Amino acid sequence: MTTTTTPPSSGIVVSGMRPTGRLHIGRWLGALRNWIRLQHERRCFFFIADWHVLTTRQEDTGDIERNVRDMMVDFLSAGLDPEKAVIFRQSAVKQHAELHLLLSMIVPTPWLIRNPTVKEQARELGLVQAEDEASMTTLNYGLLGYPVLQAADILMYKATGVPVGIDQVPHVELTREIARRFNHLYRPVFPEPDALLTEAQKVPGTDGRKMGTSYNNAVFLSDPPEVIDQKLSRMMTDPRRVRRTDPGEPFDCPAFNLHRIYCTPEEIEYVTTGCRTAGIGCLECKRIMIKHVVAELGPISERRAALEARPEMVQSALEHGNEQARAVAATTMEGVRDAMGLGS
Amino acid sequence: MTTTTTPPSSGIVVSGMRPTGRLHIGRWLGALRNWIRLQHERRCFFFIADWHVLTTRQEDTGDIERNVRDMMVDFLSAGLDPEKAVIFRQSAVKQHAELHLLLSMIVPTPWLIRNPTVKEQARELGLVQAEDEASMTTLNYGLLGYPVLQAADILMYKATGVPVGIDQVPHVELTREIARRFNHLYRPVFPEPDALLTEAQKVPGTDGRKMGTSYNNAVFLSDPPEVIDQKLSRMMTDPRRVRRTDPGEPFDCPAFNLHRIYCTPEEIEYVTTGCRTAGIGCLECKRIMIKHVVAELGPISERRAALEARPEMVQSALEHGNEQARAVAATTMEGVRDAMGLGS
Repeated sequence: MTTTTTPPSSGIVVSGMRPTGRLHIGRWLGALRNWIRLQHERRCFFFIADWHVLTTRQEDTGDIERNVRDMMVDFLSAGLDPEKAVIFRQSAVKQHAELHLLLSMIVPTPWLIRNPTVKEQARELGLVQAEDEASMTTLNYGLLGYPVLQAADILMYKATGVPVGIDQVPHVELTREIARRFNHLYRPVFPEPDALLTEAQKVPGTDGRKMGTSYNNAVFLSDPPEVIDQKLSRMMTDPRRVRRTDPGEPFDCPAFNLHRIYCTPEEIEYVTTGCRTAGIGCLECKRIMIKHVVAELGPISERRAALEARPEMVQSALEHGNEQARAVAATTMEGVRDAMGLGS
Repeated sequence: MTTTTTPPSSGIVVSGMRPTGRLHIGRWLGALRNWIRLQHERRCFFFIADWHVLTTRQEDTGDIERNVRDMMVDFLSAGLDPEKAVIFRQSAVKQHAELHLLLSMIVPTPWLIRNPTVKEQARELGLVQAEDEASMTTLNYGLLGYPVLQAADILMYKATGVPVGIDQVPHVELTREIARRFNHLYRPVFPEPDALLTEAQKVPGTDGRKMGTSYNNAVFLSDPPEVIDQKLSRMMTDPRRVRRTDPGEPFDCPAFNLHRIYCTPEEIEYVTTGCRTAGIGCLECKRIMIKHVVAELGPISERRAALEARPEMVQSALEHGNEQARAVAATTMEGVRDAMGLGS
């Protein structure tokens, strides 16, 4: 009799992130921290989605290479482990383009036109009017169809779970529909992946607006502890507290969103009361939260320093992941071609 | 001083054909015969467009492999020479899928919706109403975008000329637009190819309707001379000539379309007069034309017999072409990625 060990949870996880600049803590809390947990529990494929950047930024691609490298440094510093998860660059695995092409043949365009997430994104970019499906057909062909590319990204590794925020759930649903259609038309090749809903974290920028690289209000994963301390010390609080003696309301305080994520229940209780009674000042209040943020991000900063000293390690980790991904993708594509009657 | 030889015409020619069954003489006269001439004059890339078959036949792909092989036998029998032209299979050169994906990012969907050839094809398939642009968006995503795949096919080899029938001219025009947009956004990489208009040849089937594989009215390139003779002997003529003594009108005679292509001016003169005066019978008239058809197709039949005896030669000729195409495609893609800022 032999003993076998099974992983704590079975299943395959795939998720990607667009390399559009250094990661800020909004993306850390909203996705990356979750990935790091998942890599210990499942077979994970995490990728730098550089082709996806082209769907909305065709005219300004000069920084893609730097952003890919920066993202890999962010990933490794944050604790993604190339020995546990397959970490790769989408455009280095050309099979994604082939699967995208093959899947495009079985996806009705109305599935894309009706996709609420594409619509929302196109609206945010000022490309279409809200709720106007007809204007969706004015988008670039690649932007209209990027959920097909996402489906290819996911199905390539036969994912059973896709960690996403609530706004991305329609993409996973579409991927399931595409998988179902493929399996029905040809032969069962793809599992239908589930959305693994990542708890939404509201992370405002230091000025209280949405955190964004271009707003100059972001705390970056690459910021050293003293910069994090400095940025968060100056973070906007409830405007009612003009003077130290003015009471405030934590629920109206941008900084308090970070307390909610980082502080203990006792600390939350303490600062809530302190704020409402003007018992503590805003800076004192924020210091309680900052301590936790710095404690969490400190090790990331240390790993980053080690990596910056050895850039060839970053590159070779990425190449290692690319190769692993390519090997899986090659096997998947053999099955896909065979199912579709495209022999060689 | 050294002497250099330049080819009779410079330029690069790319053209493809969908493998949907054995080639009939309609496609021989409309395209393939022209390719064989071109291979002596230019650097030519001719490909079996198997991915394109999927744009309209996703549900019935079981015969693609056989059709690809049959098409290669047709090509070689007809006289395409793997030492002169690069003859390859589209799906064996994965770079076409990558370039398709990258180009899709810069093609506005309205360019595709307005494309008259896609519209016409969708109408013929009963997928959309004539002249109804809105219904174009009900097509499968891959069918709507197949001109982007065609553009990738053509631009991959930096074609300067694309031999097409008049109905395909809008595709070449779209390819020019895509090349122009790419060159403008990034860097001049692609020449803008010209349409090399192939003279339209009206080739009706033996029953007078349009020649088509599914109509049971086609003369195939693979038919042996005696079958060609038999099929054309029974070909429909002007219905006025019920009896041998009834005069007819060549311009209303389906068979006469082949006389126009194959016969000498003297023979045309002779049969025209003979028909209008009932001076000759229809069979005698057709024999004059059949003689030429069989003379042209006879050598094809002989080469086919030689090839059928050595199927491994067919396969290795295709692999040879695939490799040559891949080498050119790899170089093109390096330039494309570099221009777009996708380093590796």
